[in-house]
Amino acid sequence: MKKYNFYAGPAILPQEVFKEASQAVLDFNGMGLSILEISHRSAEFQAVMDEAYELVRELLTLPDHYEPMFLQGGASGQFGMIPMNILGDNETAGYVNTGNWAEKAIKDAKLYGNVTLLADSSDKNYSYIPKEYSIPTDLKYLHITSNNTVRGTQYHSLPDTEVKLVADMSSDIFSRPLDIKKYGVIYAGAQKNMGPAGTTLLIVDKNFLNEPVRPLPNMMNYQNHISKKSSYNTPPAFAVYVSMLTLRWVKAQGGVKAMAKKNIEKSTLLYNEIDNNELFFGTTAKEDRSQMSVTFKLQDEELTNTFLEKCAEAGCVGIKGHRSVGGFRASIYNAMELEGVKTLVDVMKDLGSKKG
Amino acid sequence: MKKYNFYAGPAILPQEVFKEASQAVLDFNGMGLSILEISHRSAEFQAVMDEAYELVRELLTLPDHYEPMFLQGGASGQFGMIPMNILGDNETAGYVNTGNWAEKAIKDAKLYGNVTLLADSSDKNYSYIPKEYSIPTDLKYLHITSNNTVRGTQYHSLPDTEVKLVADMSSDIFSRPLDIKKYGVIYAGAQKNMGPAGTTLLIVDKNFLNEPVRPLPNMMNYQNHISKKSSYNTPPAFAVYVSMLTLRWVKAQGGVKAMAKKNIEKSTLLYNEIDNNELFFGTTAKEDRSQMSVTFKLQDEELTNTFLEKCAEAGCVGIKGHRSVGGFRASIYNAMELEGVKTLVDVMKDLGSKKG
Repeated sequence: MKKYNFYAGPAILPQEVFKEASQAVLDFNGMGLSILEISHRSAEFQAVMDEAYELVRELLTLPDHYEPMFLQGGASGQFGMIPMNILGDNETAGYVNTGNWAEKAIKDAKLYGNVTLLADSSDKNYSYIPKEYSIPTDLKYLHITSNNTVRGTQYHSLPDTEVKLVADMSSDIFSRPLDIKKYGVIYAGAQKNMGPAGTTLLIVDKNFLNEPVRPLPNMMNYQNHISKKSSYNTPPAFAVYVSMLTLRWVKAQGGVKAMAKKNIEKSTLLYNEIDNNELFFGTTAKEDRSQMSVTFKLQDEELTNTFLEKCAEAGCVGIKGHRSVGGFRASIYNAMELEGVKTLVDVMKDLGSKKG
Repeated sequence: MKKYNFYAGPAILPQEVFKEASQAVLDFNGMGLSILEISHRSAEFQAVMDEAYELVRELLTLPDHYEPMFLQGGASGQFGMIPMNILGDNETAGYVNTGNWAEKAIKDAKLYGNVTLLADSSDKNYSYIPKEYSIPTDLKYLHITSNNTVRGTQYHSLPDTEVKLVADMSSDIFSRPLDIKKYGVIYAGAQKNMGPAGTTLLIVDKNFLNEPVRPLPNMMNYQNHISKKSSYNTPPAFAVYVSMLTLRWVKAQGGVKAMAKKNIEKSTLLYNEIDNNELFFGTTAKEDRSQMSVTFKLQDEELTNTFLEKCAEAGCVGIKGHRSVGGFRASIYNAMELEGVKTLVDVMKDLGSKKG
């Protein structure tokens, strides 16, 4: 039976990516060697890295002074690396708290500089994106989490400021076009919308990342990774390779504009069902609803197991909400086809009629 | 044509591991989902993590107070993480410098505490392992690099001290039994003798890693990774999975004792040829020769291209020495079969007879 994968991450990738990656594990490019056993300094693997870099540049229309890097450690690793590299002891960064990921980023930043909490949506269970708050002009940066996978919120407009944004974009990078010049740093764990677990994309404005603010271990220093093109040490080769294949697919599909169109179509279909089916309700402010992470609940929690069983029968997996909030969450990243969302909506409709 | 992969890393893994991993990229355990798209918190993936932990414990006979972790960032990441976690501002660690990896570890450690350079083999191009040096008893730890892939040296006996060892074992872990109680921390990038690039095995003595010595970002704090069983954040799932498959293979082959026997047989065969073939010579002290990284040179460098061509014709790839030292290096990790070494030796013999 065909499975529709709604896991939050590691998450769905295109089937053609799995097919090509599977073949490369046996024999990469006819070399007679697996992609897993070739040197990261071989011409064949350097071509993979180069193509991955170029695809990031092209899909996000990066100006020359922006540099992509493929690192390790997930977005969680960057919560500390960013202030270590950018925030001097006496400098101040602004953070907006939209839930657990932002909270962790704030905690780490406090170890390295001053943190001003500009806004916080904890008063309503992080169900909305704060919008009206003043932003000092002398901040080193303003940190946001563009999409919150646990709560199902997403920024649909950016804070109105000249201060450079530092954005955790783990769960919506490559899902829509972005206004790159607003950002000093974008970071994203690959395992949601870009590839498998094991690599973290960083995009930095080299004009923003200027003077080192403190001495750092070599692997924690962005300058080393920039100057060595992500091969300061052995990169997470297979994760970069599969990310490259996925970005090729994004490009073939028409790039991030085409992704955005499809993502709006899918999320609209699902939110319409949530709003129109009396058994369900959404958990976030409508204007801040995520096009990637659709969170919802049952009016009657006793139907939970029945609903999950019907989902499983229809091949829909990974629908359970994050363990910290309960309810349901349909992660509908780029690789989720409209057909998968339709299948889930049919289960929701069916549950309604059975109930009726 | 069959390829014999002598790359230093990413490096050869068993063919059956590639086959199983390739299948899992298409469909893992009959779930109808790729290993690349399943949640790290799913029961199916937790079983992979559990088995990986158990295999490390069993193969290295770890006492209960030793804890394995699968992290990211390579051994290079641990050069900084180790002193950050273990070496207080006023404490002193001893380091032995046997080449570039040790040098990098020393540089990072100096950022966090006092470093005493106990011994250094740079006087002879790092061609030997220092042995006669005094070790203060009040060191927090003594850091060694058990095998140097660039120079081809390997420790065959440990420093005689009660001070706990911290060892970079990236290129010879699981190649032979070890005396675990001597170690406070063992760390190893997977991509040489344990799996693909993308995960780093840490083994810590929890009695040694007691009090936190400074506040740290969450992802840089070993305690978080220990308490969350390497799932504090999304682990590098596929790299851990392939490492687990490789460790299963090590166990099926008879464990690390059987590996050691085979590694001695392979390296002896190759060193004998180096010593007996007048065209070649070894580059390290005989008593410190590595069983993993066999380095050698041609007496007549003009034969270099001819030799490399003949290697390629015989299917032997990855023989070129590290770019910093030149010459040749045959990495003969666990997964390299005796047949591969015989093939290389035949090429060396053939070069000799052609020359004659």
